[in-house]
Amino acid sequence: MSEPTKIYVTYNEVHKMCQESASKILDTLKPTLIIAIGGGGFIPARILRTFLKKPGSPNIPIQAIGLSLYETLGGDGPIEEPGTKVTRTQWIDTSSLESASLIGKNILIVDEVDDTRTTLDYAIKELQKDVDKAAAQSGRSGEETKFSIFVLHNKDKPKKGHLDEKIVPPNRYLAAVTVEDVWICYPWEAPDIDEHDRLAATTSNKSLNGS
Amino acid sequence: MSEPTKIYVTYNEVHKMCQESASKILDTLKPTLIIAIGGGGFIPARILRTFLKKPGSPNIPIQAIGLSLYETLGGDGPIEEPGTKVTRTQWIDTSSLESASLIGKNILIVDEVDDTRTTLDYAIKELQKDVDKAAAQSGRSGEETKFSIFVLHNKDKPKKGHLDEKIVPPNRYLAAVTVEDVWICYPWEAPDIDEHDRLAATTSNKSLNGS
Repeated sequence: MSEPTKIYVTYNEVHKMCQESASKILDTLKPTLIIAIGGGGFIPARILRTFLKKPGSPNIPIQAIGLSLYETLGGDGPIEEPGTKVTRTQWIDTSSLESASLIGKNILIVDEVDDTRTTLDYAIKELQKDVDKAAAQSGRSGEETKFSIFVLHNKDKPKKGHLDEKIVPPNRYLAAVTVEDVWICYPWEAPDIDEHDRLAATTSNKSLNGS
Repeated sequence: MSEPTKIYVTYNEVHKMCQESASKILDTLKPTLIIAIGGGGFIPARILRTFLKKPGSPNIPIQAIGLSLYETLGGDGPIEEPGTKVTRTQWIDTSSLESASLIGKNILIVDEVDDTRTTLDYAIKELQKDVDKAAAQSGRSGEETKFSIFVLHNKDKPKKGHLDEKIVPPNRYLAAVTVEDVWICYPWEAPDIDEHDRLAATTSNKSLNGS
């Protein structure tokens, strides 16, 4: 058993990954709503919004959903097996949206990493259910709602979750970088950010490949 | 008329501001729920969560609310006067919370900057209304819900919004740094992050004072 390879990602690298991906996203995915999966999606979503803004147009709104995969949420319930169960901690509050629904939107789901794909699979399926239900209730089933996905890192490994290609075709999935199955250290979890940056500079990030 | 003074804040500075504030927050405010005001609150809230986590305990959940003060949201409505009207773009979806409400929580509101205080004033008043309504409906009016505020920067200037001291007493308001009425350039809005860091290093940030 060897230690898993760790890669250290700096804030400025995350910033540039979002910046570089933004032009592709504007060209091909044309989002009208960002849904950040919290907490990992908050930071890339906020940075991305800067680079998706067109002069004279308002910012693309960011909605947040909270999904928990790896951790238990406290309480006296049974102990969860990590990676097998997704728990909602926050969901879309459509009552506050101006348009009152997701229908007809180009929705970009943002998360930091696509590891087992379980969380993304869950998010997409549940959001599609919401759209179908709202469309049936409002008689707006003729309107097309599109989902796409942006992550900073996709791990090249067998996935437990699967994206329905009818909902998210491959050309609506974008990872800034594809990596091997390494341990990714994000800056917002660094107990010492200067040491983190030193480790980022000295490790060569051999496993990074543009995707 | 002279150019307003600009200060440039790096990601690592934001990280350290959150890290340094976390011990004060744990000692005195003891939050059980973070509410991030989007988009500016997303990044400090996510970083703060890292440093508020106690070993063996789950992460403090982050809920997001979207408030818009400076920009119009499109549509055909009347043109807003900047700074005079707050619009909700997302609100708490209590139906997805395990405890189904905010009642009895220690709620920490997080935003990047306290400029005119209008947004914070609005957020606190509306959240307090939600709590009062939920408490009356559920017969839980005996439980104490506490609000506190954390911002990266407080601008030392006359405020248009006012925090009710019965809801947020002064010892439940924390700014990592108090600045004069300067123009703060946050890293997540930087069109060139390397240039941003150079400007941060060469400007002496004279107006920064710990608060």
